[in-house]
Amino acid sequence: MKPLNVAVLGCGSVGSQVVRLLTEQAGDLAARVGAPVQLVGVAVRRIDAPRKIEVPAGLLTTDAAGLVARDDVDVVVEVIGGIEPARSLILAALEGGASVVTANKALLAEDGPTLFEAAEKAGRDLYYEAAVAGAIPILRPLRESLAGDRVTRVLGIVNGTTNFILDKMDSTGAGFEEALEEAQNLGYAEADPTADVEGFDAAAKAAILASLAFHTRVRAADVHREGITAVTAADVAGARAMGSVVKLLAICERTDTPDGEVVSVRVHPAMIPASHPLASVREAYNAVFVEAEAAGELMFYGRGAGGTPTASAVLGDLVTLARNRVNHGRGPVESAHADLPVAAMGQVPTRYHISLDVADRPGVLAQVAAVFAQHDVSIETVRQQQHVATRDEAGRDAAAGRDGGGRGRASLVVVTHTAPDAALAATVEDLAGLDSVEAVASVMRVEGD
Amino acid sequence: MKPLNVAVLGCGSVGSQVVRLLTEQAGDLAARVGAPVQLVGVAVRRIDAPRKIEVPAGLLTTDAAGLVARDDVDVVVEVIGGIEPARSLILAALEGGASVVTANKALLAEDGPTLFEAAEKAGRDLYYEAAVAGAIPILRPLRESLAGDRVTRVLGIVNGTTNFILDKMDSTGAGFEEALEEAQNLGYAEADPTADVEGFDAAAKAAILASLAFHTRVRAADVHREGITAVTAADVAGARAMGSVVKLLAICERTDTPDGEVVSVRVHPAMIPASHPLASVREAYNAVFVEAEAAGELMFYGRGAGGTPTASAVLGDLVTLARNRVNHGRGPVESAHADLPVAAMGQVPTRYHISLDVADRPGVLAQVAAVFAQHDVSIETVRQQQHVATRDEAGRDAAAGRDGGGRGRASLVVVTHTAPDAALAATVEDLAGLDSVEAVASVMRVEGD
Repeated sequence: MKPLNVAVLGCGSVGSQVVRLLTEQAGDLAARVGAPVQLVGVAVRRIDAPRKIEVPAGLLTTDAAGLVARDDVDVVVEVIGGIEPARSLILAALEGGASVVTANKALLAEDGPTLFEAAEKAGRDLYYEAAVAGAIPILRPLRESLAGDRVTRVLGIVNGTTNFILDKMDSTGAGFEEALEEAQNLGYAEADPTADVEGFDAAAKAAILASLAFHTRVRAADVHREGITAVTAADVAGARAMGSVVKLLAICERTDTPDGEVVSVRVHPAMIPASHPLASVREAYNAVFVEAEAAGELMFYGRGAGGTPTASAVLGDLVTLARNRVNHGRGPVESAHADLPVAAMGQVPTRYHISLDVADRPGVLAQVAAVFAQHDVSIETVRQQQHVATRDEAGRDAAAGRDGGGRGRASLVVVTHTAPDAALAATVEDLAGLDSVEAVASVMRVEGD
Repeated sequence: MKPLNVAVLGCGSVGSQVVRLLTEQAGDLAARVGAPVQLVGVAVRRIDAPRKIEVPAGLLTTDAAGLVARDDVDVVVEVIGGIEPARSLILAALEGGASVVTANKALLAEDGPTLFEAAEKAGRDLYYEAAVAGAIPILRPLRESLAGDRVTRVLGIVNGTTNFILDKMDSTGAGFEEALEEAQNLGYAEADPTADVEGFDAAAKAAILASLAFHTRVRAADVHREGITAVTAADVAGARAMGSVVKLLAICERTDTPDGEVVSVRVHPAMIPASHPLASVREAYNAVFVEAEAAGELMFYGRGAGGTPTASAVLGDLVTLARNRVNHGRGPVESAHADLPVAAMGQVPTRYHISLDVADRPGVLAQVAAVFAQHDVSIETVRQQQHVATRDEAGRDAAAGRDGGGRGRASLVVVTHTAPDAALAATVEDLAGLDSVEAVASVMRVEGD
């Protein structure tokens, strides 16, 4: 049997594991593919850089463009990341007749359609299971297993760094900065954690998940994005008091509106009940919860990052593509037939959990309730309690010449019914302007009911 | 585009939902397949039987053999169940050139290789995602997503009825019979619950999972099977005291032995720690926990039964097969290249949790420990405690003319390290024969560490 020739672009934490597995499991891979799978080149930035594995010197090259242009390459694995040169290399590989496996979520979320069209034109496969939730098989199930079903919602914990931080905040009561520092010390967060903690990474994955779930092109720019930097210990404690936990969720929803179906895609911290399967996803684990009309509720759980788990997903795609080459077949292509409009965040129906520090006097609740009514937001529950003053508040009272050492206040916790997000946001703004409201202590969306 | 013609065999709880979804989602299915998907016949036992959906009268037939023999049928969906006539119909369909989707776990576990060989000979696809864990995509991930990885263990809760019963026993303290009755009343268990509670259903699924995970042919007869009818309220309470829960697990393992790698496949009740992701699988839900060398730990969770969820899995396969027909392609075939030997249960390394009622006098622990030593079984923990006598024991004491009203006994809970199952079983037998052991109160394997 003619061997299948594989070129790997990038030899970092994922690429080096791909190379290792390709070598170590050569026998098994050949049996599963139906032909030997042969590594013919590994493109790197520097030949002499230190790496975790030994790559036979003859295979290393700094000429990635030359490697993908070789006419004996059947499958190209792109694990460089970033937009360029990854995009040009993938396009060149497809044009040259190779199939492509990529783990590049940023590129797919930014410019997936260009890649899909190039694959279509070339009649080649483009697979990217490793781009979302590392080793967890989630794209193949969405694209194939649920192809006969109608997905209504995807809720994902798709960023391990932020889940680790929020989990720490929940289990230790720490604030964001402290938990971030611990994550950095343990290698769960990078020195510059922006892509993770500001939700950029999760937003790219949300765009990919939504595109597959709803057969609609969704790009990163369509995703409403809020990170976790503003999540406080008080937010987490407030969630706990409600029997909930705070998670950074990637949420893809299909909703009916008077103008027809729309999809919404957003990434933000949210409270979910402790009984929800996603609530027990601890540390840096990932999980994706899918609701489909016929299948009901499904959850996929596992390691969402790391060189070896991600390499497992790359290899799974590689075997499928190689098998398709051997059989002259082709996997499912991009399916954007539904082409649903993406709703603006303001229109998306959400629920808020709002915690207010208010003056402890009659009439306050009526005043607060009136603000909700003005915005047509209906209230599900209100919990009012004597406020235990913090030292800061007592200090402020003292500084302002008030007595009471922070007493004379109450805390009011309101959970709303579903309303358009814009109406909820406007409600919070108006509440903050009320005389009787000293502070909006915490605002958090509620999901997963 | 020439339409893809689909014949459905069986119109029970799954078949009727397949027919409904095929009709309701015709537009979406056509877009995803690349050609219209057309239902051309539904084989039933009685034309005039009451059914949940309306099937156009012209499509119903009692001549299943005639339906699969039609030369315009591209895909046959078999949801009759049982060995015959399902096997003959599937073989005839493949020989006639149709691709086949089946949900028939019993047939696959009994005689899968015959079906796979027929598919291979015909050059057609045979898919069966719905055969294991209903709507949960688990076979496709094992077969494709993990094709480049090395699966070391699969732990599955793959029978909803028994999970419901054990969950009830755990949450209410009920005994097996009482919990079974509740399951029957709620429709989670059949009037004759044998296939579920004796583990036959789970054993068939275990054989299918092991075959895919280990690229080795495993049949139902190779699976060591114990049901849950002997699980007592005391077993469940004992597990709880250890911070564990009792689950009926389908366990597929790859183990190294001096003679090389072997696989073991078994279904039995076992204690797993409450912190294990499978422990929180409640009610009639299913979940499959997979350990692979590169991917690490994965879990797949969802509804394991029911007409609609199972139909979702059937439709997913149907779309893949139909797409393969349109593209003249073919999906991955049976992969039995590893061909590993299946170990006998006696050789399988397991751990036991043994609870003994013993005489409360010096020297008993030494006597008990000696029995473990004789069988080369090493003990991880022993917990000894004053025994609170049950009314039965007090009665027996009185009847035997002993005083003490059941006092003078202790309970001894031993958790072993890993040892061959046969050595553990022999240990238990010898313990039961000791003078100082009044009763072996509970024996349960321990998994999931």
